[in-house]
Amino acid sequence: MQMSLPCVKQPDVITCKAAVAWEAGKPLVIEEVNVNPPQAMEIRIKVVCTSLCRSDITAWESQAIFPRIFGHEATGFGLEVIRELFFRIVESVGQGVTEFTEGDHVLTVFIGECGKCRQCTSGKSNICEVLGLERRGVMHCDQRTRFSINGEPIYHYCAVSSFSEYTVVHSGCAVKISSVVPLEKVCLLSCGVAAGLGAAWNVADISNGSSVVIFGLGTVGLSVAQGAKLRGASQIIGVDTNPEKGENAKAFGITAFINPHDSKDPIQQVIKNLTDGGADYSFECIGDTGMVTTALQACCDGWGLTVTLGVPKVKPEVTAHYGIFLTGRTLKGSLFGGWKPKSDLPSLVDMYTKKEIQVDEYITHNLPFEDVNKAFNLMREGKCLRCVIHMAK
Amino acid sequence: MQMSLPCVKQPDVITCKAAVAWEAGKPLVIEEVNVNPPQAMEIRIKVVCTSLCRSDITAWESQAIFPRIFGHEATGFGLEVIRELFFRIVESVGQGVTEFTEGDHVLTVFIGECGKCRQCTSGKSNICEVLGLERRGVMHCDQRTRFSINGEPIYHYCAVSSFSEYTVVHSGCAVKISSVVPLEKVCLLSCGVAAGLGAAWNVADISNGSSVVIFGLGTVGLSVAQGAKLRGASQIIGVDTNPEKGENAKAFGITAFINPHDSKDPIQQVIKNLTDGGADYSFECIGDTGMVTTALQACCDGWGLTVTLGVPKVKPEVTAHYGIFLTGRTLKGSLFGGWKPKSDLPSLVDMYTKKEIQVDEYITHNLPFEDVNKAFNLMREGKCLRCVIHMAK
Repeated sequence: MQMSLPCVKQPDVITCKAAVAWEAGKPLVIEEVNVNPPQAMEIRIKVVCTSLCRSDITAWESQAIFPRIFGHEATGFGLEVIRELFFRIVESVGQGVTEFTEGDHVLTVFIGECGKCRQCTSGKSNICEVLGLERRGVMHCDQRTRFSINGEPIYHYCAVSSFSEYTVVHSGCAVKISSVVPLEKVCLLSCGVAAGLGAAWNVADISNGSSVVIFGLGTVGLSVAQGAKLRGASQIIGVDTNPEKGENAKAFGITAFINPHDSKDPIQQVIKNLTDGGADYSFECIGDTGMVTTALQACCDGWGLTVTLGVPKVKPEVTAHYGIFLTGRTLKGSLFGGWKPKSDLPSLVDMYTKKEIQVDEYITHNLPFEDVNKAFNLMREGKCLRCVIHMAK
Repeated sequence: MQMSLPCVKQPDVITCKAAVAWEAGKPLVIEEVNVNPPQAMEIRIKVVCTSLCRSDITAWESQAIFPRIFGHEATGFGLEVIRELFFRIVESVGQGVTEFTEGDHVLTVFIGECGKCRQCTSGKSNICEVLGLERRGVMHCDQRTRFSINGEPIYHYCAVSSFSEYTVVHSGCAVKISSVVPLEKVCLLSCGVAAGLGAAWNVADISNGSSVVIFGLGTVGLSVAQGAKLRGASQIIGVDTNPEKGENAKAFGITAFINPHDSKDPIQQVIKNLTDGGADYSFECIGDTGMVTTALQACCDGWGLTVTLGVPKVKPEVTAHYGIFLTGRTLKGSLFGGWKPKSDLPSLVDMYTKKEIQVDEYITHNLPFEDVNKAFNLMREGKCLRCVIHMAK
């Protein structure tokens, strides 16, 4: 049963600047785009800051949906909030209506939380069935885009598209945060830093005194390191082929750095030697499925746990000998560190406010929006952890 | 520091009948074999009953070490117990000496428990570093065989080799059991039934009201079913291409039987439809790594757990798309159901005595030792669950 309510004035289309990716791997072009008004249960956001995540680059290099606006680690202000205009039988009237108000400070999230599906209500999952990973570049509710140029659709990315002065997201993909936290810092909790901390805490549940090995020392890997350190891990071994990554890694908890290029033994053997037969936990934070196999081999028999976080750039299949599992190893995936965004992120922001977790330290660069391509180059060349892109005020 | 003690009389070589596998896949031949006396920390056992496990067949068909004596699910009497004759610095004199006495009733086990290594003392593993899976057909302590014919070695299998009237095992691979339990039944707790129950209880830790899918309804799969039923699982779906397997499966807890040949949809889709999006737990009990992938796909997002128990007959690599893991699934191996044999099996035997678990029901055939090849044929043709082979008294 649906019942019309009196019409309310719809907000207008906004014309603003956005960095449009017209083709895979080609520099973004700052264009004037139209941003349609939000639809039911959506909010339009004025983006304040957006950091660049490696998965933006991976998608830009490899995916097929173009033209597109990338970016998903972001903070902003709620601009317009569209409330539910209809009764639904199983939902209370206006659920979500009171959650946001114009001017609220928000974090965007690439997986949402509807709060009602089997996954959201299970108490053991963050893989929302309604607002899970959006892969087709359109809004969840009507499979259409809110962005356009001359009437032609410009596709979304990860339900956020924050490389735009304004964007529209489902209200389930935005998290209200305190107005006192610095938006230019906590945008990192939208994805990378939260993903790493959650993999260490929620997914692996690292125990005190344990040994941990982390493959890939970008922001995610170093956030796993921070999480492991805060859990009291005694050995936190970082592995990266970029020798520069080793230098700053200690600040995040890494106790030993290994560059596979420096060793003639297979890396899993080097780790087994360092850890009395294998690490308690290993984390694949590169996005290399071949490295998942190595990470499994680097774990100990009996209870070794490998967590895979990376988004593969090339071969999507994980392959491993059955004996690796039969001797007691476990392979587990981690998407956004197991955090239910709306339920859990406010407490993570709170930990940041109380200085219980490091976030600022992952920001190696700050750039204005017009230099977004420089940020892409820094990330591709492995020269940054997080580069925060500041929109014009 | 080692110190000689006065010599004690060594037991003699025993000549007895054993079923020798001379070549892969060729019928066993009952031969007169010499069984050497046990060495330090070993015991010689008079085998009473031995059941045939699918992995005996797999090894006989595919492995390279011959001539060999198969069989590992067995019960018997301790015949001679060789005690530690030397002082060792870190071990107390005669550790293991008091554990067995001639005439004790024992269960043999294919993975032992030394009680001292990192794994045994961890409290979270049964993958003993000292007495783990023996793959080369020789005894742990001296890498030699105790069996021979005309001075030529006959190799062991799985540290047991129970298709022989007498065998020698490491004392860490034998479990003392009460003399009142029927040896012709509890030999099934040496491997198959225990492996399935342990996978359900120790490895998956199945929760009340959950949905479970089991690929392969042999003794191991049906023991997972029993374990799931005793944990209060509400849906226990059994999958097997042999239609006869479905008939008796209900007695072990299976609530629905699927023959993939009867369905035009992929089996994982059929299971997703039956379980509101995927099972909570899936178990691969066939020994088909391709089926591990299917088992992962049959699990639900968020918390789906796949346990792999089977020993692959063909392709040893498990392959699965990374997205399967990223959306919250876990793949875990189970060797002997996570049971630490010496610590845990007595309580399982105790549960059998109290009729808390079914064991007898898996015995579909009984044969005398001379018909051991008939047992192999029954198993290869999928016509038995467990066939118990009775040695002459």
